[in-house]
Amino acid sequence: MSSNSARPVVTLTTDFGTGSPYVAQMKGVLLTRNSDLQVVDVTHDIPPQDVRQAALVVDEVSRRFPPRTIHIVVVDPGVGTDRLIVYAKLGQQRYVAPDNGCLSLAAARTPPELLVGITNRLYFSPEVSATFHGRDIMAPVAAHLSLGLHPERLGPRLAALVQIPAVEPTVKVNLIHGQVLWIDSFGNVITNITTRHLALGPAGAPVTVGFGEHRITGIVTTYGQSTPGSLVALIGSSGRLELAVVNGNAASLLAARPDDPVHVSW
Amino acid sequence: MSSNSARPVVTLTTDFGTGSPYVAQMKGVLLTRNSDLQVVDVTHDIPPQDVRQAALVVDEVSRRFPPRTIHIVVVDPGVGTDRLIVYAKLGQQRYVAPDNGCLSLAAARTPPELLVGITNRLYFSPEVSATFHGRDIMAPVAAHLSLGLHPERLGPRLAALVQIPAVEPTVKVNLIHGQVLWIDSFGNVITNITTRHLALGPAGAPVTVGFGEHRITGIVTTYGQSTPGSLVALIGSSGRLELAVVNGNAASLLAARPDDPVHVSW
Amino acid sequence: MSSNSARPVVTLTTDFGTGSPYVAQMKGVLLTRNSDLQVVDVTHDIPPQDVRQAALVVDEVSRRFPPRTIHIVVVDPGVGTDRLIVYAKLGQQRYVAPDNGCLSLAAARTPPELLVGITNRLYFSPEVSATFHGRDIMAPVAAHLSLGLHPERLGPRLAALVQIPAVEPTVKVNLIHGQVLWIDSFGNVITNITTRHLALGPAGAPVTVGFGEHRITGIVTTYGQSTPGSLVALIGSSGRLELAVVNGNAASLLAARPDDPVHVSW
Repeated sequence: MSSNSARPVVTLTTDFGTGSPYVAQMKGVLLTRNSDLQVVDVTHDIPPQDVRQAALVVDEVSRRFPPRTIHIVVVDPGVGTDRLIVYAKLGQQRYVAPDNGCLSLAAARTPPELLVGITNRLYFSPEVSATFHGRDIMAPVAAHLSLGLHPERLGPRLAALVQIPAVEPTVKVNLIHGQVLWIDSFGNVITNITTRHLALGPAGAPVTVGFGEHRITGIVTTYGQSTPGSLVALIGSSGRLELAVVNGNAASLLAARPDDPVHVSW
Repeated sequence: MSSNSARPVVTLTTDFGTGSPYVAQMKGVLLTRNSDLQVVDVTHDIPPQDVRQAALVVDEVSRRFPPRTIHIVVVDPGVGTDRLIVYAKLGQQRYVAPDNGCLSLAAARTPPELLVGITNRLYFSPEVSATFHGRDIMAPVAAHLSLGLHPERLGPRLAALVQIPAVEPTVKVNLIHGQVLWIDSFGNVITNITTRHLALGPAGAPVTVGFGEHRITGIVTTYGQSTPGSLVALIGSSGRLELAVVNGNAASLLAARPDDPVHVSW
Repeated sequence: MSSNSARPVVTLTTDFGTGSPYVAQMKGVLLTRNSDLQVVDVTHDIPPQDVRQAALVVDEVSRRFPPRTIHIVVVDPGVGTDRLIVYAKLGQQRYVAPDNGCLSLAAARTPPELLVGITNRLYFSPEVSATFHGRDIMAPVAAHLSLGLHPERLGPRLAALVQIPAVEPTVKVNLIHGQVLWIDSFGNVITNITTRHLALGPAGAPVTVGFGEHRITGIVTTYGQSTPGSLVALIGSSGRLELAVVNGNAASLLAARPDDPVHVSW
């Protein structure tokens, strides 16, 4: 099929909770304005108001989608303040989100080609509530964009996005100080230490990963190399150092939580 | 695109639980009969057999969808009794649901244009189980409707829907007695007191909202007007009075639950 | 519409957890390769690494879908070992899954027409992680299949699927020893005893269902026949014997769990 006939994709990333009627209201608004849309749930289980988790998910997930996908992010502790809502084009992906840092990790990976502050009420719902801009501003704006609206019609160009503080590890000689970013549904403990950081260590030297009192020798490449129940360090599917228990739950074993420190030494 | 080519939308509202294979079975039946359908999950997290919560969600959500959307509601404590399954057309929206009150709040807002008792087995699955009419009756009937079946082929016209008891607040001079309808995923406490009720109070007079021992002075228009952690009363995105903690969880703070009393006084 | 114009359906059954960004990554990969796909979530709430539960869900759900649906199953405790990933055609349904038994119950019902070991890296993502074959192998392979790839291009034909141990009840004279398969979201206790087994009992004789200390006399056909709160045995919507509490939660009442024994006697 030609690219013209492909159905436009809109994704949703929110902290509304799976099964929230707020999500369904947004889908209704999107489909009312463009019934040809394909709406994909990324997740609605971002912890309430947790902009950093939203930024991590947006960075990991959105770049896997087809070119010209529109990603709506509604993690918006500042709704009702003077925070902007922005349109951003990062590579081939497009975003509509509050300008609160939730796009900043994706933008660090792929510098913005276009940033616009969304201010033109012509493309909003006729009545805009004070507390649900996802439904009344972001959804109708995304639907207009999917129908071909040029983003510069939405408002003024912006020079830069709001940034959230970096969560980069500290790299020293033969030592990396990192931290836990999130826990996945298997209890795998995902860190901010990536293959790029590990490549800075001495090639071929034996490596130790430390978490609390635990010391793990060596980094394996997959769960299948170790016996069930053993605690391992491995490189996960997004290139991040993870702590995992083979067919078990590392977060429970380690009592690990986001922000906990993780060390790598040679 | 012309309206003829738009893909028909079917929504699902159930108490099956997110991730239930029962939901997936209904989607299979729908797509087998009309592979062009767009199936949208409203929620599967209605508390088991809670017809009133279903009615509230249907009323809040379904009117946001495109004209001619078919909304299937499967919250059906009477499955296997002689309760009817009905087709209802309310404004531009269409519904297929047990006649147990789950449509009555939407119908109070938008009076029915057509009500039909669904009795014609020609449009059911060949085998109808005794306990899963969502899969064996409602899904195939909705698929037939999406393909153009005239609803009067489904059975006899009905005069009225089953009603559930009203949950309207009591409005007195300078005093409203209301109650909690539901708690959202942020812990916001949503009440049955709406802008329409509040407009009956004396214009400009100072207002107090009471819940248990708590007294809140004034009604704000958005979370952003108050400091994080403070308890506020505000008008939510559906025009209902809500109790909220700015960037926090009001339901936890107040130990609030559905049906708890809420007062407004001037 | 002609069958040629129907949008291909791909379903997802995983143990990633609802709301997992891993699911969203798979959807991105699928839609990037075939934007015309219709992706349907069956469930993401299979208990981690529980191949038997996956096999039960696949068997119950997948046969309800349109012919030529592609079902992806990612419950994969052996990722990174030498377990195969397989393509299977069972009747009109197609499957892409690890060869670990998760297809064996569906294959017992509908013998395979074609089995292929998926080894041809031409149809994988360019970079294959060691731990996420759902994203890097199964999703791109399913997208290729949906675009018309002949499955024998994926690798060598296989003679048989890996089987998981049978969970069939033991049928004796006037007595059946079965077990609990799963608990649904209503707390209904679903067993491995089916109408086929019950038909082996003496016709017309009074029947008793036993669970722990509980004895239930007779098997009803629907919840509506009994008073709310009563414990009943009935034939569920998939032809399985279930224990249920009318408008209540049988699993809580019985403290029932998967694998618990259930007896039927005449």
